[in-house]
This record gives sequence, C-alpha cells and structure tokens, in this order.
Amino acid sequence: MTAVTVEAFKDYLKKIKSYEEALHLMAWDLRTMIPKKGMDQRSEVIGQLSETIHTLKTSTEMKHFLDELPPQVEDDPVMKQLLKVCQKDYDRDSKIPTAEYTAFVTLRSKAETVWQEARENDDFSLLAPYLEKLIDYNQRFSTYWGYHDKPYNGLLDQYEPGLTTDVLDPVFEKLKHALSSLVSKISASSVEVDAGQLLHYFPKDAQRAFSLSVLDKMGYDFDAGRLDETIHPFAIGINQNDVRVTTRYDEYDFKTAIFGTIHEGGHALYEQNIDPAFAMTPLAEGTSMGIHESQSLFWENFVGRSQVFWESQYKTFLSYAPEAFQTIEFTEFYKAINEVKPSFIRIEADELTYALHIIIRYELEKDLIQGTLQVKDLPEAWNDKMESYLGIRPTSDTLGVLQDIHWAAGDFGYFPTYALGYMYAAQLHDAMSQEINIPMMIQSNDFEPMKAWLIEHVHRHGRMKEPLDIIKDVTGEGLNPSYLIQYLTEKYRAIYGWD
Amino acid sequence: MTAVTVEAFKDYLKKIKSYEEALHLMAWDLRTMIPKKGMDQRSEVIGQLSETIHTLKTSTEMKHFLDELPPQVEDDPVMKQLLKVCQKDYDRDSKIPTAEYTAFVTLRSKAETVWQEARENDDFSLLAPYLEKLIDYNQRFSTYWGYHDKPYNGLLDQYEPGLTTDVLDPVFEKLKHALSSLVSKISASSVEVDAGQLLHYFPKDAQRAFSLSVLDKMGYDFDAGRLDETIHPFAIGINQNDVRVTTRYDEYDFKTAIFGTIHEGGHALYEQNIDPAFAMTPLAEGTSMGIHESQSLFWENFVGRSQVFWESQYKTFLSYAPEAFQTIEFTEFYKAINEVKPSFIRIEADELTYALHIIIRYELEKDLIQGTLQVKDLPEAWNDKMESYLGIRPTSDTLGVLQDIHWAAGDFGYFPTYALGYMYAAQLHDAMSQEINIPMMIQSNDFEPMKAWLIEHVHRHGRMKEPLDIIKDVTGEGLNPSYLIQYLTEKYRAIYGWD
Repeated sequence: MTAVTVEAFKDYLKKIKSYEEALHLMAWDLRTMIPKKGMDQRSEVIGQLSETIHTLKTSTEMKHFLDELPPQVEDDPVMKQLLKVCQKDYDRDSKIPTAEYTAFVTLRSKAETVWQEARENDDFSLLAPYLEKLIDYNQRFSTYWGYHDKPYNGLLDQYEPGLTTDVLDPVFEKLKHALSSLVSKISASSVEVDAGQLLHYFPKDAQRAFSLSVLDKMGYDFDAGRLDETIHPFAIGINQNDVRVTTRYDEYDFKTAIFGTIHEGGHALYEQNIDPAFAMTPLAEGTSMGIHESQSLFWENFVGRSQVFWESQYKTFLSYAPEAFQTIEFTEFYKAINEVKPSFIRIEADELTYALHIIIRYELEKDLIQGTLQVKDLPEAWNDKMESYLGIRPTSDTLGVLQDIHWAAGDFGYFPTYALGYMYAAQLHDAMSQEINIPMMIQSNDFEPMKAWLIEHVHRHGRMKEPLDIIKDVTGEGLNPSYLIQYLTEKYRAIYGWD
Repeated sequence: MTAVTVEAFKDYLKKIKSYEEALHLMAWDLRTMIPKKGMDQRSEVIGQLSETIHTLKTSTEMKHFLDELPPQVEDDPVMKQLLKVCQKDYDRDSKIPTAEYTAFVTLRSKAETVWQEARENDDFSLLAPYLEKLIDYNQRFSTYWGYHDKPYNGLLDQYEPGLTTDVLDPVFEKLKHALSSLVSKISASSVEVDAGQLLHYFPKDAQRAFSLSVLDKMGYDFDAGRLDETIHPFAIGINQNDVRVTTRYDEYDFKTAIFGTIHEGGHALYEQNIDPAFAMTPLAEGTSMGIHESQSLFWENFVGRSQVFWESQYKTFLSYAPEAFQTIEFTEFYKAINEVKPSFIRIEADELTYALHIIIRYELEKDLIQGTLQVKDLPEAWNDKMESYLGIRPTSDTLGVLQDIHWAAGDFGYFPTYALGYMYAAQLHDAMSQEINIPMMIQSNDFEPMKAWLIEHVHRHGRMKEPLDIIKDVTGEGLNPSYLIQYLTEKYRAIYGWD
C-alpha cells in the first residue's frame, strides 16, 4: 500500500488524468479521423479504459486518500476542494453495486442501437421497454446516492451540482410563458424574414477559412487546439493545452458550420483557460454542464448572432462567400440568420424557440422519473406539449419523441442544463455589460476584453468553484430567467417590430 | 487473484492491447495532429501508459499465467506460441532491476536532448559521456538476459530473435565487398545520370494525390488506415483494422514523399493482413524488425524503383506532375531516380550505398559493446570506415557519427535489421519470381498477386512464426546475401553500363 500523503494522492490523480487523456484522444479520433474498419475494436478499447478509470476512482486506495488526507490539508483550500470533488465522484460511482452498473451500461448500449431502429421504423414501441428499464435504473441510482426530496433531484445533481426542481420549476415556468408569448407575437408580426435567401452553395474550404478567422478573433489558441470536421460537432479537452474543436459543414447552409464552430469554440475557450496550476487534477475541468453551456451560448448567441457582430464581420464574410451572397442587403441578412420559426427538431431550432424544446423535455423526464407519466403515454404527452408551447404537432415520433439519443442513452437530468446554460449566459452577459461596452468592443473587432472577463470570472476557476458560486459572485444573485427574457424580448422586438 | 485459465489469460492480454492501442494512437497524434503546446503533457502521459504496460507484462499475474498455463495448452499451437512470446517479453523486461531500468530511461531521455545540442554545436564530446553510460547499461542488460557468446548478441536478439554475429559477420563481409566493388564500377562509369533534372516544384496536393494512387494500387486498405503528413515518416498499427501511414512532402523533390509512402505502405500492408484470429494478442504484430523491413523494402525498392513500375505509372505520374516534368524523357527519368552517389547521410542514401551505411554502424556498435572500441575514438573510426567503404570522408561529426539518434536513444543492435530486411526482401523477391511473373504483373497494373503472395507467406502469420522460419519455409535456405547482390549488380549494370 502506498503511503497516504498529499504527494501520493497527486500522483494517483495524475495517473487517472493520463488515462483520461488517452480516452479523450481516442474519443476525438473515433469521431474525426478513424478509418471505418477500426471502429469496432476502438469501442472495445474505450470500454476497457473507461473501466480502468472507474476502478481507479472507486478503489480502496482512493478511499484511503479520502478518509485520511482531510486533516493534513486543512489550510490548503485547493487540496480541500480536490478532496471534495474526488469524494463526490467516489460516492457517485461506488454506491452503485458493480453488477448493477455493468448491467445498466450493457442495457444502455443495446438501447442506443434499438433507438436507431425505432427511428428508422418510426416505431416508438420498439424503444419503450428499454426506456422503462432505464428509468427504473435511474430511479434506483438516485436512491443509492441519497437524493433530496425527489429522485429526479439526484439525477440533476450529476450534471449541475446542487440544482433541484424547487429552483428549476418556477424558473422554467416563467421562461416558458415569456417565450410562448414572444412566439405568438412573432407569428402575428407582419415582418417578412426570408431565411431561404441564405441557402446558396458555399464551398466547405471557404466556410472553414471563415470559421477559422472567427475562432481566431474569439481568442481561441490554435497552438493549444485545432479545428476538424465531424458529424455531430463537439469540443474536447485532451489536456489544457490541447482543446480541440470540431464542426460540420453543410455546403448549402453555411449557418451550420459557423454557429457550430462559435458554439464549440466557446466551450474550448473555457477549457483552454483553466488555471494551469490545476493541471493533471480533476479541478482542471468545467465546473458543471450548465456553466459549460453558458460559455458556448455566450459566444454563439450573445456575440455570434448579434447585429453588431455581423456588421463588423460582414466584409470578411463576403470575402469568403460566393457570388450569390454579394448582393444580399445586410439588414436582410441579419434578419435571415435570426429567423424565428417553431419547428420539430431541437438541434435545428432557432435561438428563441430552443429553450421551449428543453422545457418540454424537462417536464416530461421529471414526470417519468417521478412515476407520474408512463412510458407508453410519452409520445402523446410530447406531442401535446409541442402543440401547446410551440403551436405545432409532430406528424411522427421520429420528428417527436424519438429525435434525441439522451434518454435511450440512459441520461435523465441532462436536458435542463442546456436551458440553464442559456440563462446563465444572459446573466453573465448582463454583468459583463456593467464593465465593458460589449457592442463597441465587437464593433471595433476587439474581443480580448470579453475573453479576459470570462477567464477572470469563470474559466480560470475550473472545478475550484461551484457553479452557483460563480453566478452569485458575478451577478450578486442566483439563477434568474429575467435577463434571458429581456434579451430575447428586445432583440426580437427590434427584428419583428411589435410595440 | 484471478483464476489461471486460458480465458483469463486472453482477457489479460486484451487489457494490455487496449493500453497499447491508446499508446499507439497517442504516438501517432503526437507526430501528426497535436498542437504544439499539448506536447509536453502528452509526453508525460505516454510515459505513464508505457509504465502501466510494462507493469502488466511483468506482473506476478503474468508470471502465474506463464508458469501454470503450459500444461493446459499442449495441443493448442496458437496458445503455445502466445505463451512463448509473452515469456520472452517477460524475461526481457523482468530481468532488469526496476531501479536500473528507470535510471536507463531517464539517462536515455537526457541523452536525446544532449544529442540535439551536440549536433547543433557539431561537438561529439558533449554526447560522449552519455554514450559511455548507455553502452554500459546495454552491456549489463545483455548480461541479465543471458547472451550467447557475446553481449552484442543479446542486444541483436531484442530486434531479430535468434540472430547472432556468427551469422551476420560473414554475410555483411560478403555484402560489403560486393557493394564497394559496385560503387567503384559506378564511379568509373562514363554514363551520365542527371538527378538534378527532377528537382522541380511539385505541389504537395498533387504529390499526395499521386501517393494515394500508388498506395491504392499496392492494395493498401483505406477503410483500415489513412495517409497523413509528418516530419519523420512512419507506419503504425493502432489496431489491425487501423494501420496508418505517414509521409513527408518536399515540394522541390517529389521522391521524398513517393518513396516514403511506398516504404511505409509496405510496413502497413504487413500489419493490415495479419490473421484476424490473432486480434488483441501479441501475435498480431510483425515477427521481427528484419521481416518488417523486408516488407517495406520489397515495395519501395523491388517494386517502386523498378523500371517496369515507372513505365506502368508514368502516364499517371505525368497527369499529376507540373509542366516542368512533361518533357523529361522516360529513360532519363528512370536513371535519375536511381542515381548512385556516395553521400554522408544514411537516410538520404541511394538504394545501393544504403547498406554500406548500415554495415559501418554494425561494425562500430559491435566493437563498442565488445569494448574493443572506445567512445572517444568513435568519430575517427566512423570517418575512416566512410572513406574506406564509400570513398568519402565526413567533414564534420554532424555529417558523420552524430547523424542518427539511435545510439543516443540507447539502441544498440537495431541498425543491422535495416540491412537484414533488405537481404530478406531480395530473397523473398527471388522466391516470388519462381511463382509469379512480377514484371508482367506490374506492367499490367495488377499488384494483387504480389500482395496475396506476401500475405500467404509472411503477413498472415504475425508473430506466430519466427523470422527465420518464414525465410526458410519460403526460400529453402537461411539468410543469404547473394540475392541482393545479384539484384543490385544486374540493375546497376543496366543503368551504368559496364561489362
């Protein structure tokens, strides 16, 4: 047995981080570079390494560190926090009996395959029995962890430490009504927005060049990252000095690549700028899914979809864009990239209706875990909510309840973090505006002060600071949907012109 | 403790292979894709994973398998061979005291840095004390392993199981005289070869396209691999269905990329075609460095530098090549890519003088390990041999003894496998010629029968077959330099036209 010292603990964490670097690189490669015949074995190898990491995080050795080190580090806040996050991971991972967890992983992997089939056949009934079992597992896991009040809270806590339905329910209620009301006003507006005028051929290479120029402006460090192509875009921290971004190119809709790049670039900026002192420890990670998403959405929406951003970039954009774009009038262009139109698919939704898609999922999964909604009734419940909040009713389950992989992957409690990140982003944007003239900075092509502000208040802390502490220290309050509502109201009133 | 069963052993090997897949991917990425700031931590992580693999290969658990399984697998030749190769790795790795091995690894890593400095300052004396210690370690390691006759044999055996100086000495002696004599004849020849006429600008993309077309003809499976750019080309098996090739592009000398690609493609074909039944075990590897090199050199030289190959590819080549190449007469072109010219640097040497560079290194390192040559006398000894075998004397140590990293990396006994592979390639080429009309196949652009022959006799066996058994089963004899000498004599007599 290794001696239980701070040094030994750090070495132990370093070992875990080494395996995680390998794992993350394998995951990146699997989605960007790998030749197709190599995928099967790769999946197996990823499973093997994940298991090793899981074993290391829940080992007797880890338990000894967690039990015996605290008295040794009372004056060291970093070590204290390190022990805290490791304890949390330990509790989460070790409280589930191994056999049960393995059965869950196997079921989940099978369910993902069935989900594909169910989509192809537009047949929810294929997936239903799997969902029932996955919900059952999630309920039990939450019980093992010891949830507060409701089992769903235990699931939420995995992704957003400390968040509960008591906080979320009134917030989402308020947001939902505000957004629905905005959607109605926009539907009633006589302003014409022609998004179709942007659907011209735009070669991949030129899109890539423009995407790179925007990443560069954001302050993304290309000596500590790279941009590659994939099917489902993501950003991934392989180590703090190697945080990679991926995007997807649609040669008939340039918006996919550019907004995807900015979004993932926002995630990447976060990971590139965590305090280097936390390297090779679990503090060198984003503090929660919600805060991570606040960074991607800050850049994608509050910067990337703003009028001033496109005013300042339009000349550059046109220098990469083909002939067909050269005659589009700027005001028309700006309106077109901000068209609001209720649609079935979440990942294709506009900036305004997007949160409604999330709220629908939140309400449904909460009821599923609580047991007040049965899986068999889910498709109908889904369609009812779509009709009620967005005014459209899916014509098939593939366009409805079967569109996302999350539930089939056994993930419940994850969806709300998307909307949470959006509200956080609005709060951060408001706080930043007190100190920085954001439009002026964007106008003058100087993004550095925004990046520096985010580093100072968010990025550098990594997991050293809890998500709600970040928000409170910056804004002086907790989660508050008003800032997002205000931002969306002002922006879309200007575009769609109601009083 | 896990039960000592064949199943448990296979699972154990699978685990090792999983870590090796991660390690190989990280090594590939480090040399092709990684952003520069990510390199430092990556090196650390690679060290961590290498240590894990070393630990698994020399563990008590491995020892139990090796000690207890043999009686259970007497009727299973595959399992017997698996145990044999694992025993070999176990013996090699476990006989060196851990502290001593760690000290060696640290020294080696330091020596590689010093080697860079020594080159930059053209000052061998900087490296000398490190080389002395590295030689010392190698002598001791060989003693731990229990060498046959001479310590150098123990080192050779690491790279080419069973090979000794008794075999190599007369073979290299014969080869050396034959090659020196050919070099003299060529020097005396009045035939003019103008290699300079090939040094035109040839854009990277076009070189890449031509390289891909050649890899494709060789039967390289792009669904199980890919071609990327790097500084020092290599091929690497990440798994059997993911064997990647890299090359380097010199836009003013297309030969670098095309011959590099064919060479690495030959290595890759080997790994892509090992029997899939050996997947996730150490049998799914090349059987020795010499046999591996025979595959790369078979394709690079016996195919890729042949007249018939360029006759059949010339139209394609010209379709990718810029204007300046269009007027080169084919015979001149063929002679130019086969120019023989004694030069200082091994990796830039032509097909004929290359083996002389290897023999010089072999003779010197054998004496160093034997203790009959002192490190301080090495530069002089190097230059003397260059003058004697190649007729040129290096004007600096950077152009002489400091050019290769191998010795600074602590590798002794590795160099001869390059020449060994070349002789094996000639022997395989001769054996193949008995069954296949090679020139006719190349002429008709049908490379499949050559590939199939190599798969049948070499590739599919992986480490199931010892290197010398491969050669004996195919050629009916052991290592024999005559085939290489005959090939080179005929080829260069035709080009340089002596009687």
